[in-house]
Amino acid sequence: MRISELSERSGVPVATIKYYLRENLLPRGEATSATQARYGEEHLRRLRLIRALVETAEVPLARIRTVLEAMDDPGTDLHHLLGATQYAFTPLAEAPPDEGAWEEAAATTTGLLAQLGWNVTPHSPARQQLTAAVATLAHLGHPVGAETLRVYASAARTAAERDIATVDPEASRAETAEHVVTMTALMEQALLGLHRLAQEDASARRFGSGEHSAE
Amino acid sequence: MRISELSERSGVPVATIKYYLRENLLPRGEATSATQARYGEEHLRRLRLIRALVETAEVPLARIRTVLEAMDDPGTDLHHLLGATQYAFTPLAEAPPDEGAWEEAAATTTGLLAQLGWNVTPHSPARQQLTAAVATLAHLGHPVGAETLRVYASAARTAAERDIATVDPEASRAETAEHVVTMTALMEQALLGLHRLAQEDASARRFGSGEHSAE
Repeated sequence: MRISELSERSGVPVATIKYYLRENLLPRGEATSATQARYGEEHLRRLRLIRALVETAEVPLARIRTVLEAMDDPGTDLHHLLGATQYAFTPLAEAPPDEGAWEEAAATTTGLLAQLGWNVTPHSPARQQLTAAVATLAHLGHPVGAETLRVYASAARTAAERDIATVDPEASRAETAEHVVTMTALMEQALLGLHRLAQEDASARRFGSGEHSAE
Repeated sequence: MRISELSERSGVPVATIKYYLRENLLPRGEATSATQARYGEEHLRRLRLIRALVETAEVPLARIRTVLEAMDDPGTDLHHLLGATQYAFTPLAEAPPDEGAWEEAAATTTGLLAQLGWNVTPHSPARQQLTAAVATLAHLGHPVGAETLRVYASAARTAAERDIATVDPEASRAETAEHVVTMTALMEQALLGLHRLAQEDASARRFGSGEHSAE
């Protein structure tokens, strides 16, 4: 198909597609003349993926390119691909509001992970994200208890085990790699939505005033 | 304390504090002259809360003001306060990339919530968030199965039950309200961090190449 049809089918403006081509996010089409190229279903598929990643998290395109490069590189195993995707999508934790609270929270995170026996790298951005939440809550005078963190870890593990179990061992490397990227980037939105809905339900049961709904 | 000390202790510039005062996010201090006012620990506490909410989610200040107003209004019960906080912090779902996928995902969400028997409002933004994730994954050719959603719902419920259980029934309304706001806004960052760490651990076990770590 021509770039105009690719634009129509993807809903992405031609100028944006050209930008993605220049930025090497989207592979070039097959040249049919000096100024025209032909695109296939794989371009449409890649374009949809780029849009989904851009819209899910407001991250610089350079980070999305890093994920796509890892996805396309057969030398990157699935474990490292998952790590690259997480790294690209985890916001960097803000500078600590309170150094003492930060250090204490970092020790809490390290202790919890050791107790759980999880095999995670020391420089994982997710570790910083957890530490930042624990430090901020302590700073605000609403510290998170150890038991709450254990309950949360157990819930997180339930979801994560399922994530990894859904990867089909029979699929091709290309299919599996795309699955790992979309799952890593998007399933946490499902988890966040369900967590909020579950909070609403639990809150209605405990605090609800008989109206059976939050307005 | 004077505004200069409030600035020093909170790490928030004087100009920003003045802006929060003008925007009615922070209550005025006690006037000590035509141009000076005295601030107390409650101002410091409120300032820290505003900063934490601003830094956690990039939401307009008007939304944060809505949360603070609900928090300060003794007529707002905890269930509605939780709803107001969730509403302020849940990003609005993007326009559907694919109308068919969106409608199917909305039906999936409705069916799942009915099956779970959760008491949630039809217009909850979290519902849209879940639907958007399910629709996007289907659009990208990696649909989420019903069993995965049930596993996720169970994990989300475990965390949410704990959230609501941590609210102290003996505390004052003001303390409890602040707890509900900070918990709703910040604990999901802890859940996201733990979910990513648990994915890394599960991935290392399934896909790891014996290096025992992701780089």
